[in-house]
Amino acid sequence: MEIFSLGMILEARERLRGMIQRTGLVAFPALSTEDSVLYLKTEDLQNTGSFKVRGAYIKIAGLTDEERAAGVIASSAGNHAQGVALAAQHFGVPATIVMPTGAPLSKVKATMELGAKVVLHGTVYDDAYQEARRIQKETGATFIHPFDDPLVIAGQGTIGLEIMDDLPDVDTIVVPIGGGGLASGVAAAVKMLHPNVRVIGVQASGAAGMKASFEAGHVVCLPSAKTIADGIAVKQPGELTFEICRQYLDDIVTVDDDEIAQAILFLMEKGKMVAEGAGAAPVAAVMNQKIERRGNVVAMVSGGNIDVTMISRIIEKGLLRAGRVSKLRIVLKDIPGQLEIVSRIIGSAGANVMAVHHDRTNVDLDIRDAILEITMETQDREHAVRVIESLREAGFTVN
Amino acid sequence: MEIFSLGMILEARERLRGMIQRTGLVAFPALSTEDSVLYLKTEDLQNTGSFKVRGAYIKIAGLTDEERAAGVIASSAGNHAQGVALAAQHFGVPATIVMPTGAPLSKVKATMELGAKVVLHGTVYDDAYQEARRIQKETGATFIHPFDDPLVIAGQGTIGLEIMDDLPDVDTIVVPIGGGGLASGVAAAVKMLHPNVRVIGVQASGAAGMKASFEAGHVVCLPSAKTIADGIAVKQPGELTFEICRQYLDDIVTVDDDEIAQAILFLMEKGKMVAEGAGAAPVAAVMNQKIERRGNVVAMVSGGNIDVTMISRIIEKGLLRAGRVSKLRIVLKDIPGQLEIVSRIIGSAGANVMAVHHDRTNVDLDIRDAILEITMETQDREHAVRVIESLREAGFTVN
Repeated sequence: MEIFSLGMILEARERLRGMIQRTGLVAFPALSTEDSVLYLKTEDLQNTGSFKVRGAYIKIAGLTDEERAAGVIASSAGNHAQGVALAAQHFGVPATIVMPTGAPLSKVKATMELGAKVVLHGTVYDDAYQEARRIQKETGATFIHPFDDPLVIAGQGTIGLEIMDDLPDVDTIVVPIGGGGLASGVAAAVKMLHPNVRVIGVQASGAAGMKASFEAGHVVCLPSAKTIADGIAVKQPGELTFEICRQYLDDIVTVDDDEIAQAILFLMEKGKMVAEGAGAAPVAAVMNQKIERRGNVVAMVSGGNIDVTMISRIIEKGLLRAGRVSKLRIVLKDIPGQLEIVSRIIGSAGANVMAVHHDRTNVDLDIRDAILEITMETQDREHAVRVIESLREAGFTVN
Repeated sequence: MEIFSLGMILEARERLRGMIQRTGLVAFPALSTEDSVLYLKTEDLQNTGSFKVRGAYIKIAGLTDEERAAGVIASSAGNHAQGVALAAQHFGVPATIVMPTGAPLSKVKATMELGAKVVLHGTVYDDAYQEARRIQKETGATFIHPFDDPLVIAGQGTIGLEIMDDLPDVDTIVVPIGGGGLASGVAAAVKMLHPNVRVIGVQASGAAGMKASFEAGHVVCLPSAKTIADGIAVKQPGELTFEICRQYLDDIVTVDDDEIAQAILFLMEKGKMVAEGAGAAPVAAVMNQKIERRGNVVAMVSGGNIDVTMISRIIEKGLLRAGRVSKLRIVLKDIPGQLEIVSRIIGSAGANVMAVHHDRTNVDLDIRDAILEITMETQDREHAVRVIESLREAGFTVN
């Protein structure tokens, strides 16, 4: 493959030295066993909060003076926007970023704060992409592709070199895949030097375009890309990234949104770490036994740029799913003292009442009865079941 | 001071080697300037999620065989419980932890999972403390004080040695203070070796017992300790910790709950880090200019054990406070098309509508009017103000 080589990744490493964070590899005891330690590669602590700045930096570093003067343009709803903006700012190159109007405002603001001109256009990524291409033709700026570019891939590949430096006896490296820039770069860097190390890709099940392309034997475009992991919500992988992934990846597995959300929550609670959906996908794959565990495993936490409002929603959903928060509907005879009895039973079973809603107007009810909706916090699902059983033993009807 | 010495801290360091995490010091660019870099000491990544395991380990290591056989007992609503449980588990010593019934269930569960017997008693910490003392007399177990014990203080002091090893040219170290175990240990370790380094304590304004004791010249007990930072919600500092803090601390400043909540949110968004209230208090002090900035500053992130339900509440409150989420009350003439006009104005101003509530039943309203409550997301407070002005220019009454 002429347009892409190990030398490019090694060169990228030299260029990035001192320009970006040399992120660490931290052991994660909560998902480690005696035989198999899980390490996290903390690209969430990278400048701009994701790995994307690596590829953007290498791409812009390779532009001529004329190209730099004409500026760069990119389309992105998130991390690529900030990566390009930071790299352009470093080289003094004017940057225009087209973002869909639905992009989280925190990301729009962060991109502007890095000195880029932000154009809001259309409602989905594809609209923003078309507009960026249009502006690019008008202005002659260089379009910085988010993944399908050999220099961008080389930049992301430096992460593979860092992992091998820090943990020479790694057995398996797990990386998220959207368009495939990170996965192809890391897989190439690792496999060209250490063919025995396994590199496994993880896609969101609602946006598994690389997996579908593997199965078809050529690049395919999904009709949609639906996942909470916006960093890997890509319908179509790149041509180049597809070829490199096909050559070097050992396997691709998928995780669904519930698994991703649980992994985000687990990383927060046990790892004290904020990961975005894409960044938590490899951990989700490990948690859900999608990958055969043996030896030292590295899960790539590719970024931490998750909107705090999304964190709120994930917490609420995660607690419900884990049985740590339950909503009970209890039918009460509408006579005094019933709420007190229910509260006492719940309290003495060690659960915490979080919210109470009392409703007499439900049409399905006997005129004398009422529905009591209780939201309660418990240690886990078994604990919740014990509380419900106590209520039933006391004669209450609980749904 | 005979009962406490630098030698004890140095000895504690040797005993802890290999037993606990050697936590790192990470630069925090978001709060750094050219002249003054802010570093975070990441004790949130310590085993059990807080520094408390250090002191507990050193205390239990110092027990005789007879004392170990009789077991240990402690009272705690959180971090001390897990620290004692883990240290006891390591030494094979039976541990009983008395927790108030209101303790977060995640902490109760974590303590049980570390092999400790958990007794739930009373509704506040003081009830649990009294019960622990009662059980202690009955069983002859050794009571492990959460802070006012020279061995516990020596254990926490090892953090000061680590900071000096990693950053010899530190100017200022900022530590949270509840009972004073961490602050006294760190201040003593640092000042005995490097008297020119400033060590500044931070208390929650609703639980500033050490500050009140400084001002009184003797230990005082506050009538209450109210703060979201449960790790430092202590009414009365220790006698020994008071004496050591008075000798070695340069100053004590306070931060309020809003400032702490903002710091928790800031650490999540900009640092990708989960800190509990006490752990975020030093960062809150730096963010709010409570401390004169000069040279390299270290803010101690003492722990990350925050309940995820608390994180949800802090996110919601923090977004409101920063003007990133606003609730508007708009008086509408109850005629068709009004909601559409309002939506268009908000949308074209670049804000996102998150929730809408339409109410015609308000008694203060003219019979023909309605109240539209809109929750919207904006980039910041200025952006929100611009949206409100656009609505007013279009003739709407907005509160």
